[in-house]
Amino acid sequence: MKSNKKADATIIIIFGGTGDLAKRKLLPAFYNLFLEDWMPDKFAIIGLGRTPLDDEQYRERLHEGLVEFSRTKPDKSKWDSFKPAISYFISEINKEGSYKELAKKLDAQDAEWGTRANRLFYLSVSPQFIEAVTVNISKAGLASDAELDRIVIEKPFGHNKETAIELNNMLTQTFQEKQIYRIDHYLGKETVQNILAFRFANALFEPIWNRNYIDYVQLTVAEQVGVEERGDYYEGSGALRDMIQNHLLQVLCMIAMEPPVSFQAEEIRNRKVDVLRAIRRIKPEEVHQYAVRGQYADGWLEGKKVPAYRNEPDVNPRSNTETYVAIKFFLDNWRWQNVPFYLRTGKRMQEKTSSITIHFRPVPHSTFANSQSDSFMNNRLTIDIQPHMDIRLRFMAKKTGLEMDLNPAEMIFDYDKCSTQTPEAYETLLLDAMLGDATLFMRSDQVEEAWDVITPIQEVWENRESLDFANYAAGTWGPESAEALIAKEGHVWAVNLHSK
Amino acid sequence: MKSNKKADATIIIIFGGTGDLAKRKLLPAFYNLFLEDWMPDKFAIIGLGRTPLDDEQYRERLHEGLVEFSRTKPDKSKWDSFKPAISYFISEINKEGSYKELAKKLDAQDAEWGTRANRLFYLSVSPQFIEAVTVNISKAGLASDAELDRIVIEKPFGHNKETAIELNNMLTQTFQEKQIYRIDHYLGKETVQNILAFRFANALFEPIWNRNYIDYVQLTVAEQVGVEERGDYYEGSGALRDMIQNHLLQVLCMIAMEPPVSFQAEEIRNRKVDVLRAIRRIKPEEVHQYAVRGQYADGWLEGKKVPAYRNEPDVNPRSNTETYVAIKFFLDNWRWQNVPFYLRTGKRMQEKTSSITIHFRPVPHSTFANSQSDSFMNNRLTIDIQPHMDIRLRFMAKKTGLEMDLNPAEMIFDYDKCSTQTPEAYETLLLDAMLGDATLFMRSDQVEEAWDVITPIQEVWENRESLDFANYAAGTWGPESAEALIAKEGHVWAVNLHSK
Repeated sequence: MKSNKKADATIIIIFGGTGDLAKRKLLPAFYNLFLEDWMPDKFAIIGLGRTPLDDEQYRERLHEGLVEFSRTKPDKSKWDSFKPAISYFISEINKEGSYKELAKKLDAQDAEWGTRANRLFYLSVSPQFIEAVTVNISKAGLASDAELDRIVIEKPFGHNKETAIELNNMLTQTFQEKQIYRIDHYLGKETVQNILAFRFANALFEPIWNRNYIDYVQLTVAEQVGVEERGDYYEGSGALRDMIQNHLLQVLCMIAMEPPVSFQAEEIRNRKVDVLRAIRRIKPEEVHQYAVRGQYADGWLEGKKVPAYRNEPDVNPRSNTETYVAIKFFLDNWRWQNVPFYLRTGKRMQEKTSSITIHFRPVPHSTFANSQSDSFMNNRLTIDIQPHMDIRLRFMAKKTGLEMDLNPAEMIFDYDKCSTQTPEAYETLLLDAMLGDATLFMRSDQVEEAWDVITPIQEVWENRESLDFANYAAGTWGPESAEALIAKEGHVWAVNLHSK
Repeated sequence: MKSNKKADATIIIIFGGTGDLAKRKLLPAFYNLFLEDWMPDKFAIIGLGRTPLDDEQYRERLHEGLVEFSRTKPDKSKWDSFKPAISYFISEINKEGSYKELAKKLDAQDAEWGTRANRLFYLSVSPQFIEAVTVNISKAGLASDAELDRIVIEKPFGHNKETAIELNNMLTQTFQEKQIYRIDHYLGKETVQNILAFRFANALFEPIWNRNYIDYVQLTVAEQVGVEERGDYYEGSGALRDMIQNHLLQVLCMIAMEPPVSFQAEEIRNRKVDVLRAIRRIKPEEVHQYAVRGQYADGWLEGKKVPAYRNEPDVNPRSNTETYVAIKFFLDNWRWQNVPFYLRTGKRMQEKTSSITIHFRPVPHSTFANSQSDSFMNNRLTIDIQPHMDIRLRFMAKKTGLEMDLNPAEMIFDYDKCSTQTPEAYETLLLDAMLGDATLFMRSDQVEEAWDVITPIQEVWENRESLDFANYAAGTWGPESAEALIAKEGHVWAVNLHSK
């Protein structure tokens, strides 16, 4: 990972510069990196868009974004020293001429600095435009230096395995794999990054981090929001593609991977791909035994009535798109044989929470009398990713008092208490991209293997006809069938994760 | 252990009823047990002493003790319902006649209740009186029922192995071993009791609780007080006898013991004796390699000048009595071979603290770059017994921020926060004694083995002549030689235990 140095002179070129992501996430991230002196000594940010704006108007728009979204509110003098680096460039994604003009602008910047700067192309555009952008970048010779130039793309990385491979093939016509930074903002989160530190900087956990001591693992990413304004996109995606294929499978990789030799990007990504390869593929005829889908009905969330998915804007009133998924995976390797990994994600859940729980096996022999064992609970390690960041170990302790009664207790490490300012995931990832550290980005084989894992489920779901959607009320923990899925193994979903 | 039932009708007979212990500890314990409805439905407390007092005067004395020392301040109506159970009995320890009179009183109480009550003889007297008391109890037939009658004695249990055996032989002329409750108030402390729950009600720790994962173990019992008014007693004892032989070795047993089949008293005590037997005996010629002693000079403690041990009241101005001991033990068994157990205790230490620290081995391979490893610390589990009660696990975590920097962090379980009222050790132990649960009391073989462990050290120290005492200043962590003792192995004493 980063060795705390700054990148050399860098020009950041944002395709979709007038879009929502640039305003909400990218510019606030660069601004905060600037405040904390992580930006290169020489840098320029060029926003690209069709809207006719001049530099000053563009800066004004971004400033509004900072006011609303930045974790550090913009200070006049800091903003004044930051904003000259920002410029706006009117361009048409499909017009070759735009790219030639852009080339001149980039060359002029290089000439002014007296150096060929790194170029970071950030594609904040719809997937259907990626090809046009990359082909035109190539034709105009914008990314001519494989060492200095990089491209960042956002998910979705294809719509299934086939289209993912097509996308990767298309990208590699212009860029080498090492130039391509596939961003999954989930991997930039502090607590997610901490999983690797927790596992591999401590001698205590690795000896028990296997099938001999771990009973099962749960990953939960629960949202309270519904589909909001994204009905159109979501109808073509669903929770399996939108969350499982990327975020949850990547977190699973970090929990399940073998110890890496080093923290080099290729090493970490090799170990992650090993996990994806080890995931037992689910046969089409077994999908119903391993995966459950749901779609939210209307319901109540925090005292407010919310509509059913099928009544959301831009959603087909007979939509079969899943807004909830629960899956049971097994890993075919020595470490994890027969240990179920339960992944679930859903919209309109009762709580907003992202958590990992490691459930340990029971004690081999109960030394305590039955009367003392009523409240017996197995050890559980919880890593909360959001909204709260903490690590908690549940263990049995003597209840204070005159009897030898046992009670579950928790050892807690509260991440939030130890840090005043936590960087946003985009700050981490954009800095990494500028520094050329790809550890937290997805390599093509990771993307393809992840698609391979979910493809059978996806295909069976898309081809099966009648569905009893909606099958869970907004404000609950999803359909009952998700409970049944894991109850077979005698397991239960960890609920009230944080309050417990 | 206790199964939450009350004892049958019980008469508690306190030899030394006008003494300090009765006032400070015993009566407050019984009073608090009474408040929480743990006392038997029928009970009587008889204080014995030479001082001429009537019942009301005696109760008044004890009431003063409650006001000063009880964790629950006495409430008038509660006290009024408690105090009739207390009476005073004028007696001479060496006079047979006193015991005959006492017999009448006990019989009268039985007659009044219509049942032969349990009798709990609490010997809060100097060791030299134990023989007289037990012989006279025997002659007067006071403890005629081996099932109902018990005797509680306080340390010291002998002055060395030989006198301990003599004491045990003498006691067993009157009582069966199962009637004898040797009290070590340290074992009644909540956190000490919790060690067993922590180890054996959790599947997580036992797999790493051995030489493969544990580097070394430290037990620290540090006092800030000096010898106070106990110079006379202490001159004949010293820290080795006063603390190591009982408290620290008993705690070591709980940390090192094999998993018990059940929590039956005999089973737990068998497993503890196994540990004492496994402690490698230190040869006289090797004592200097394994044990360090110290005596405090004058110094400063919390801004106050305090005198040297040799200047304390009732202390020989050329005394060689140790007020500090540090010892390195090894256990000759499969679990603990080559794992040092470091025990230390001292008076006039910088902090008052009793803590156990389990130091785990380093990670087998450092995945992280050197620049990230500067602050690398091995995992450490800390069990704080007093003054604060908590359990803390030190682990390495990612420091919040844009770099992959590692920092030691702690998961904490704060016992104090989870309990409004923690019972005093004497409450736990007196209730156990009334219920006939000997788990937390010392069996004769435990006492004798513990003496056997320290005998070589004790003999060498007593026979060796010139000493460079005092060798540590009050308000420090003891003599430098204690650092050297463990520095040989590359280890350091855990300091600032709580603040870190």
